[in-house]
Amino acid sequence: MQVTPWKVEGAIDYNKLVKEFGTKLIDKALLKRIEKYSKLNPMLRRGFVFSHRDLDLVLNDYSSGEGFFLYTGRAPSGPMHIGHLMPFYITKWFQDAFKVNLYIQIPDEEKFLAKKELTLEEVDKWVIDNILDIIAVGFDPDRTFIFQDREYIKGLYTIACRIAKKVNISTAKAVFGFNNESNIGIMFYPIMQNVPTFFEKKRGLIPSAIDQDPYWRIQRDIAEGMGYFKTAAVHCRFLPPLTGIEGKMSTSESDTAIYLHDSQEDVRKKIMKYAFSGGQATIEEHRKKGGNPEIDVSFQWLSIFFEEDDTKLKKIHDDYKSGKMLTSELKAILVNKINDFLRDHARKKADAVKLIKQFKYDGKLAKKMWDFEKNNL
Amino acid sequence: MQVTPWKVEGAIDYNKLVKEFGTKLIDKALLKRIEKYSKLNPMLRRGFVFSHRDLDLVLNDYSSGEGFFLYTGRAPSGPMHIGHLMPFYITKWFQDAFKVNLYIQIPDEEKFLAKKELTLEEVDKWVIDNILDIIAVGFDPDRTFIFQDREYIKGLYTIACRIAKKVNISTAKAVFGFNNESNIGIMFYPIMQNVPTFFEKKRGLIPSAIDQDPYWRIQRDIAEGMGYFKTAAVHCRFLPPLTGIEGKMSTSESDTAIYLHDSQEDVRKKIMKYAFSGGQATIEEHRKKGGNPEIDVSFQWLSIFFEEDDTKLKKIHDDYKSGKMLTSELKAILVNKINDFLRDHARKKADAVKLIKQFKYDGKLAKKMWDFEKNNL
Repeated sequence: MQVTPWKVEGAIDYNKLVKEFGTKLIDKALLKRIEKYSKLNPMLRRGFVFSHRDLDLVLNDYSSGEGFFLYTGRAPSGPMHIGHLMPFYITKWFQDAFKVNLYIQIPDEEKFLAKKELTLEEVDKWVIDNILDIIAVGFDPDRTFIFQDREYIKGLYTIACRIAKKVNISTAKAVFGFNNESNIGIMFYPIMQNVPTFFEKKRGLIPSAIDQDPYWRIQRDIAEGMGYFKTAAVHCRFLPPLTGIEGKMSTSESDTAIYLHDSQEDVRKKIMKYAFSGGQATIEEHRKKGGNPEIDVSFQWLSIFFEEDDTKLKKIHDDYKSGKMLTSELKAILVNKINDFLRDHARKKADAVKLIKQFKYDGKLAKKMWDFEKNNL
Repeated sequence: MQVTPWKVEGAIDYNKLVKEFGTKLIDKALLKRIEKYSKLNPMLRRGFVFSHRDLDLVLNDYSSGEGFFLYTGRAPSGPMHIGHLMPFYITKWFQDAFKVNLYIQIPDEEKFLAKKELTLEEVDKWVIDNILDIIAVGFDPDRTFIFQDREYIKGLYTIACRIAKKVNISTAKAVFGFNNESNIGIMFYPIMQNVPTFFEKKRGLIPSAIDQDPYWRIQRDIAEGMGYFKTAAVHCRFLPPLTGIEGKMSTSESDTAIYLHDSQEDVRKKIMKYAFSGGQATIEEHRKKGGNPEIDVSFQWLSIFFEEDDTKLKKIHDDYKSGKMLTSELKAILVNKINDFLRDHARKKADAVKLIKQFKYDGKLAKKMWDFEKNNL
């Protein structure tokens, strides 16, 4: 198992990760506390969101009236797949439940600095497309600010300098695994990803996949010394790639992922051909022994995101396990669910074109942040 | 002898520096070529500007009509002294002679990142004051753009990312002497100082003291691969501190420097008390043996900057060397020259208040650069 912001490989032992990273499991008591504010979505109630830092303190701050804010992001370098959307849907749940400000960073330099062959021009081709996919998730346009690092840099750089002065090369090497051959742009970049945690003098809550956690360890070391809050986080698991439940879905291996732009036919073909099955080799054997939903990617996807109804999900689980439901039938259910989702997403993405100005410039929060940008010297 | 961008100490062997740094001496033939364009100022004709990189190519580019541009800067953290002005007067000579664009960088993050105890607030106190001192030198307001890094960062950051990707941690450590305890802000900063060399697809010429040369070695390694010119440079010696001809004038030791804000009385007292003398211990001995102008700081200052007239300078030299002129008389000449200069500077600085908008925003070049800032994504 290897889990860093740049590489996720192997069978992931999430309990071990929690210990290694020093985060906490989200237990039933904590879920009960969250549930008071709004009905839990499947990702929360089924343990896809499994780990946190200081979520209890976030809830305290909310109850006491101090409030909190949300922060997440997406580094563009290609089309988004379904796995990329999970943290955004978790974020949306929190914004809907608590009506708080949300900052969405689009670091349009990160992948350029990290990948030898990638050009800025290639990155720039995907920026707006990715932003539209994100807007389609359905955030509050007056409480959400979407910003690109290179465009909003004047709002970031002074804070970045203040942070960078507190972090030495040793620390950056230890936390991120840089070495002397790393370029000094990617070395500096983690600072940029820390900046939004200093946008408000409230506790920030960052929903992300667990591999992003190292970025904010630095923040938690220095924030209080700078008069800010240690950032809080909720971590989700990885949506398993189609080809098996190990690792995470990868943009570079297109067979393992369902892209948001995949056609209905693409989706059907990919699921039928690649979705790793927990079923038996023959129908006869399957009827007799039953399937294993725990390792079946189609079932896992239904469980994580695509089947919201717990009763229906349980029936699928039991029918598959008993052998009553065949792999092809299970896959057909998923194909329909994904295609419904993608059809809806495409419609919302088309509508998002009209909203982009509001999220980037004209919404209530966006306006406030551009005023800050103008006057922060 | 130690000469780095952060420390200058000991008796400086300039010929050795030229060898170590791999620059070239400005020889008589090159001076003759420059002289064709305009009468040399004392700093050029008396060898205070002594070293260069590619100045011959700059002159070729100018002759062929391709042109070139100038770039220099000043990191604010306190008041400016006379030594800080030398590179600006050299720069002014080149702008007057060749009528070319000049970019003046005010890195209002550098000293904050480099000095543990210095705050950004302390830096910001000096930014405008330093800019006014620079404007007082008398640049062409339509061909000069003065910019602060944190204010103009959107015009800098994308170029900075392109450069940073080409420079690895090893190189930065080797060139600048960083170690693992260095903070990652100061590690990234040299990139910012390289950005203005990419403002035009022409050769850039950087007048600076020789200790700044390492900053642009990186540029010369990567510029051509990025479709730009290797930057050219002219290097000056250090104006010796009052207390002796070793090292350079330091802002932190106020006795060794004449500040631009020093009163006429301050100047008189400092020169009389601290200016290292090449004279003899008693008047009798001085009359008999004569003084040594080579180690006499007052004579050196007259030679470098304050006595433009070669005939007058030679007479002072000869009279002092022969013992005809006493140290007190030599010092009195310098005091008058400095006080005349500072009176004139103060008047120009007062006038500069009205010009600051033109240099920063409204002048022809400034306007062009802000248009670039707006549209460079």
